[in-house]
Amino acid sequence: MDIREALYTTRAMRRVKPDPIPEEVQARILDAAIRAPSGGNTQSWRFMLVDDPDERTALGALYSECIDTLWGTFYKDRLDAVAADPDSEDSMQMQRIKNSVDWAQKNFATYPLLLFAFDRNDASGGSIFPAVWSAMLAARAEGVGSSLTSVLALKETEVHTVLGVPADKGWHMACCVPMGYPTGRWGVAKRRPVHEVSYRNKWGQPVGFEIPEPLWP
Amino acid sequence: MDIREALYTTRAMRRVKPDPIPEEVQARILDAAIRAPSGGNTQSWRFMLVDDPDERTALGALYSECIDTLWGTFYKDRLDAVAADPDSEDSMQMQRIKNSVDWAQKNFATYPLLLFAFDRNDASGGSIFPAVWSAMLAARAEGVGSSLTSVLALKETEVHTVLGVPADKGWHMACCVPMGYPTGRWGVAKRRPVHEVSYRNKWGQPVGFEIPEPLWP
Repeated sequence: MDIREALYTTRAMRRVKPDPIPEEVQARILDAAIRAPSGGNTQSWRFMLVDDPDERTALGALYSECIDTLWGTFYKDRLDAVAADPDSEDSMQMQRIKNSVDWAQKNFATYPLLLFAFDRNDASGGSIFPAVWSAMLAARAEGVGSSLTSVLALKETEVHTVLGVPADKGWHMACCVPMGYPTGRWGVAKRRPVHEVSYRNKWGQPVGFEIPEPLWP
Repeated sequence: MDIREALYTTRAMRRVKPDPIPEEVQARILDAAIRAPSGGNTQSWRFMLVDDPDERTALGALYSECIDTLWGTFYKDRLDAVAADPDSEDSMQMQRIKNSVDWAQKNFATYPLLLFAFDRNDASGGSIFPAVWSAMLAARAEGVGSSLTSVLALKETEVHTVLGVPADKGWHMACCVPMGYPTGRWGVAKRRPVHEVSYRNKWGQPVGFEIPEPLWP
């Protein structure tokens, strides 16, 4: 698969089938992930694949609690905005995200594979998320869908207990990436265009070009 | 370029030529970056391209101070280990990194393009570093080398002043990615293999496969 196709079409794929991901595919995903750079090439990372049914059930219960918290706090304003004006473009987009997350909340235990990433001494996240995103791009090339969630951090202690993470040695969960073969189609996600979120030399100064439509395909 | 080639060969490229990067290449890099996912698709990000010579000189001075601090603090133990046993494999690797960073320290102002990324409300970094890494992979496909550094965070206030970042509105620099056409060759970076840094279902439990050599090419 061409790099540009992967970069443009690796969107959050939360609705996936329970079909297992073959071990050789898992191996290719992780082997691509560890090629990513990390600060000083310290590779202060650990990865964990979770496919044990009991663990997935336990993690699913924690995920569900975290999501309920998320809707009631960080995303409360956005959900209130949806209720007030359900037909606006922003509301419809938020509703699509919520429907997809609702699906994940109900079906978390059916994800055939969860990839957890852990780091330490990485305050910015800049030494773990390139590797995580490489795993997701490598998965895309294998036809495996994924989504990245940090929401389990709201129950970090409980997650660390389930997975046996030695938090006393400084390790902590950076994120969880549920994976599986998608039920939906791949496509280019809608985004605010580059010229609305980019500057040149000074904050607020035009970047110098406009890109009204995606440059791929 | 195939996605796997990009994932395996996008290593830190600090030594680059001063030749400018054409605007259409810059546009393709940023347009790929903004396709990355972010929490709740909030896209709470801004990007800035810096090519102004005076700014690059000012940022180069700040970078140099930050690197000096880094060697004297976070990496002091590793440099002491290099001095004590310069011929070990770890020492030689560290010395290679240091030589490369020394080059960047001396030549920072000659990077033809600096890409800065900013975020807010993103405690983990999980909503900005996928986009940054996509930019670096897209650059790789264009033959443009890059490296990711968060070290300027040690002089965050000064950097924000140079770039006009409205820190009072919650925005802050996530990282800086110097870019340019490399003087060296692309290659697969050496890493600890997957089975040494990955587990299955419980911390410390074997992941289930061994990958002694990179699975690409």
